Amino acid sequence: MSTQPVLIAGQWRPAAGSQTFQAENPRLETSLPEQYPLSLWQDCAAALDAATAAQRELATLPAEARAIFLDRFAARIEARAAELVEIAALETALPPKPRLADVELPRTTNQLRQAAAAVRDGSWVLATIDSKLQIRSQFGPLGPVAVFGPNNFPFAFNSVAGGDFAAAIAAGNVVIAKANTSHPGTTRRLAEEAALAAAEAQLPPATVQLLYRLDHADGARLVSDPRLGATGYTGSRAAGLMLKQAADAVGKPIYLELSSINPVVILPGALRERAAPIADEFTTSCLMGAGQFCTNPGLILLLAGPATEAFLAEIATRFQQAPVGTLLSSRVAQSLVVSVHQLHAAGAEILAGGERGGGTGASYANTLLRVSGEQFLQHAEQLQTEAFGNVSLAVVAASGEQLAEILDRLEGNLTGTIYSHTGVDDEPLYAQLEPRLRQKVGRLLNDRMPTGVAVSPAMNHGGPFPATGHPGFTAVGIPASLRRFAMLQCYDQVRQSRLPPALRNQNPTGRLWRLVDGAWSQGDVPA
Amino acid sequence: MSTQPVLIAGQWRPAAGSQTFQAENPRLETSLPEQYPLSLWQDCAAALDAATAAQRELATLPAEARAIFLDRFAARIEARAAELVEIAALETALPPKPRLADVELPRTTNQLRQAAAAVRDGSWVLATIDSKLQIRSQFGPLGPVAVFGPNNFPFAFNSVAGGDFAAAIAAGNVVIAKANTSHPGTTRRLAEEAALAAAEAQLPPATVQLLYRLDHADGARLVSDPRLGATGYTGSRAAGLMLKQAADAVGKPIYLELSSINPVVILPGALRERAAPIADEFTTSCLMGAGQFCTNPGLILLLAGPATEAFLAEIATRFQQAPVGTLLSSRVAQSLVVSVHQLHAAGAEILAGGERGGGTGASYANTLLRVSGEQFLQHAEQLQTEAFGNVSLAVVAASGEQLAEILDRLEGNLTGTIYSHTGVDDEPLYAQLEPRLRQKVGRLLNDRMPTGVAVSPAMNHGGPFPATGHPGFTAVGIPASLRRFAMLQCYDQVRQSRLPPALRNQNPTGRLWRLVDGAWSQGDVPA
Repeated sequence: MSTQPVLIAGQWRPAAGSQTFQAENPRLETSLPEQYPLSLWQDCAAALDAATAAQRELATLPAEARAIFLDRFAARIEARAAELVEIAALETALPPKPRLADVELPRTTNQLRQAAAAVRDGSWVLATIDSKLQIRSQFGPLGPVAVFGPNNFPFAFNSVAGGDFAAAIAAGNVVIAKANTSHPGTTRRLAEEAALAAAEAQLPPATVQLLYRLDHADGARLVSDPRLGATGYTGSRAAGLMLKQAADAVGKPIYLELSSINPVVILPGALRERAAPIADEFTTSCLMGAGQFCTNPGLILLLAGPATEAFLAEIATRFQQAPVGTLLSSRVAQSLVVSVHQLHAAGAEILAGGERGGGTGASYANTLLRVSGEQFLQHAEQLQTEAFGNVSLAVVAASGEQLAEILDRLEGNLTGTIYSHTGVDDEPLYAQLEPRLRQKVGRLLNDRMPTGVAVSPAMNHGGPFPATGHPGFTAVGIPASLRRFAMLQCYDQVRQSRLPPALRNQNPTGRLWRLVDGAWSQGDVPA
Repeated sequence: MSTQPVLIAGQWRPAAGSQTFQAENPRLETSLPEQYPLSLWQDCAAALDAATAAQRELATLPAEARAIFLDRFAARIEARAAELVEIAALETALPPKPRLADVELPRTTNQLRQAAAAVRDGSWVLATIDSKLQIRSQFGPLGPVAVFGPNNFPFAFNSVAGGDFAAAIAAGNVVIAKANTSHPGTTRRLAEEAALAAAEAQLPPATVQLLYRLDHADGARLVSDPRLGATGYTGSRAAGLMLKQAADAVGKPIYLELSSINPVVILPGALRERAAPIADEFTTSCLMGAGQFCTNPGLILLLAGPATEAFLAEIATRFQQAPVGTLLSSRVAQSLVVSVHQLHAAGAEILAGGERGGGTGASYANTLLRVSGEQFLQHAEQLQTEAFGNVSLAVVAASGEQLAEILDRLEGNLTGTIYSHTGVDDEPLYAQLEPRLRQKVGRLLNDRMPTGVAVSPAMNHGGPFPATGHPGFTAVGIPASLRRFAMLQCYDQVRQSRLPPALRNQNPTGRLWRLVDGAWSQGDVPA
């Protein structure tokens, strides 16, 4: 079978170089037939040149063209949904239904349509006008964005169709997508639809480009290239940190989502009140999708006592009894072997699972570990090793003070959760713990598990390092996610006719929200 | 004379270590008498511990306490203005009047009061509420902020009283200030007033701490310490890049203002129309404060022709005739020697000046250099060497196309300016050049010089690397500058009583602007 082409400058063409790779069918742990290319730097350079020209052309087009593209792309994904679900299921072992067809695909098209709506609304630019001084500013596009997608959301975080892609395009940038190598077939089909949608919307052909695989050095070179504006990356911490170092060295914005163990604190009052439903919620959240979510609850924190012992015994039983899911790849299974070994070596006791296998193909037993608060404090770094998959570590603290100390030792996370008594029983402990947890997480939850990330304006799918590279930005939630791929552009005494529409005296739509002389308004600015 | 103490945990106490330094009187090029300490890591560690505790305490106090502090501090600076102006003039050679007393000191107290008003208003947190999903978010404090101030604004950018300080405090953070070593006496007196104002406002004593000097390794350790939240740095590119590398490696936000040559493009129609007033404006802007402004026009771009020749001859004459100012220090004079040498070595011809001296004490002749567009393109990197002071480089391009190419080769800058015909003569060229310049600068100006940075909400004193470390943030302009020192904090299904005031259903002031279900509002959220 011949090697699949890459998408550069609007053309599907053979990649430079001759090395290829194949995706895996994780259910069978065998290779899928399609051959995909590893690109040489030559492909990156060609994509960067084409992106530079396309970026310049895109700036001359009305914003509406990008909105049309995003809408058409969403419609095209829906039209090809059956095939997309089939290939994604094959490449990732995620269930076709409900997960891929009924949850993730609609979420993806919803994101694209929300991005289109944000383009049309325009308020994401935070237009700010000081009318007396004639100083005006807004967020504007940064330039070509490289997007590296993760393995666990073949649609919703796909480098050529997911949240980063939608945000980068909506903000006015062209995209160079680097496929996740575990689902190149899904990505290829999405890119085909994106390219056709771009043509329909009369965007420059190089608005969307796709490469499948790069070696580490070329990845680092890409994210630090002068022609690039910024990078969005979701994936492993090791690879992400290499890219971060390269981009940081030349001051190129790079937004990374790296790792998160999502601590869940269960306070005694909650346990006393409703241990069984919490055990249910926790087990479901932890094992859903074989635990392969960025916001999977990988760390559960409890106070020592009989209720906690009973709770952990209950969860261990549920973990043992629940079916074992197929993982995204053999690599994920292998990395669970390594992570669980590290947690065990740092003093964690295995309450359930702890070995490879147990499900169809690439799999690892549903695993629950446990460690005392004292042990955790002694080996806090090793015991925060992310075990990406159906594995959680319970920490049993001796006291509220020790629990507070543990929270202070946590690394940055995407989420942090506190379950508490529905009345006031846990209020003093909540008040003691919440400020500590708050500083360590992007999203703080009460009484529900962190899996499930609504695409909503107030959402924060971000958090302090190493959860992400900067705690001021979110990867999910439109329009805020657009501002990652934008720069602050101020205009000082610039003539009306030369200003971008959002900054002229006349409100371009009559609905655009602007901060005019300190007050948010949808009106015109008096001339 | 005994060594001055540092300010740690609310106490003026001897620094750890015995090394000291003295500031310079640049008018005499002699040392000033006061001895200031170089701190060892022990001082940093003590300050970080005290900051951690103070940060926690600060979070429990009402925002009003910070507003009171900022207002009182401003009043105290005014009460001690005469002494502050005297010592600052001694340490920096900046004119006591009008610059220090009538411009910079009032600007500094104005910034502090604007920051106080931003705290009281509260809208800077961009509170966002999705009422149906019960997801709410706002920006909240990041934790202790280290501030490194520059040499050129002893008040307005001072690490213990300037823009970064005011923004960090207003955003709810405590500050560890690292004095600029060229004006420790000014900084000490400001810190004395800050400490007294903090006591009056009943803030934790360690809200404001001050160290004078650190070696490079301890600086890097400080900005990457787990106890620190973020860093604000304004100063030299070399020192800033060392700090950036250390902070980036551990994912700590660091906001840097490093260097900027602030290109000014003068289009033919403008020159034809009003060459003399432009020459006036340019000379004034370039030589004011001996050119030691972040937004000093260090690069002027023109199209070849007789009008340009006459214009450059006119400026050269004005540069030669204008009095030569005293520089901030002998180091600044020495670094001009090096920079001008580098520009000359890269092919620039010296039209005026080009040697050390000519004024009182530390000084360098008002210097104008010139290079062709072709030469510039051949040595674009070297010819963008920042010559911090009263030096500018004129680039004479052969054509509009060449000018466009030159703009594409520019590094990131704080500002970019285009002078054009008041009618439509220059419109085609403007349309060709503006998009290229726009991407390279934080603030784009028409028909006025970039010196002068209004403290106004729409201001952007930021720009692409290496002007700053991230093009999405501004160091000047309240409230936007506060958000550098904040993290995005999302609350998901959190009970009303546990939410921060800005996110509760009831608008806490009735005036706070919040984005509720997609519309900006000052109202309550229906329960």
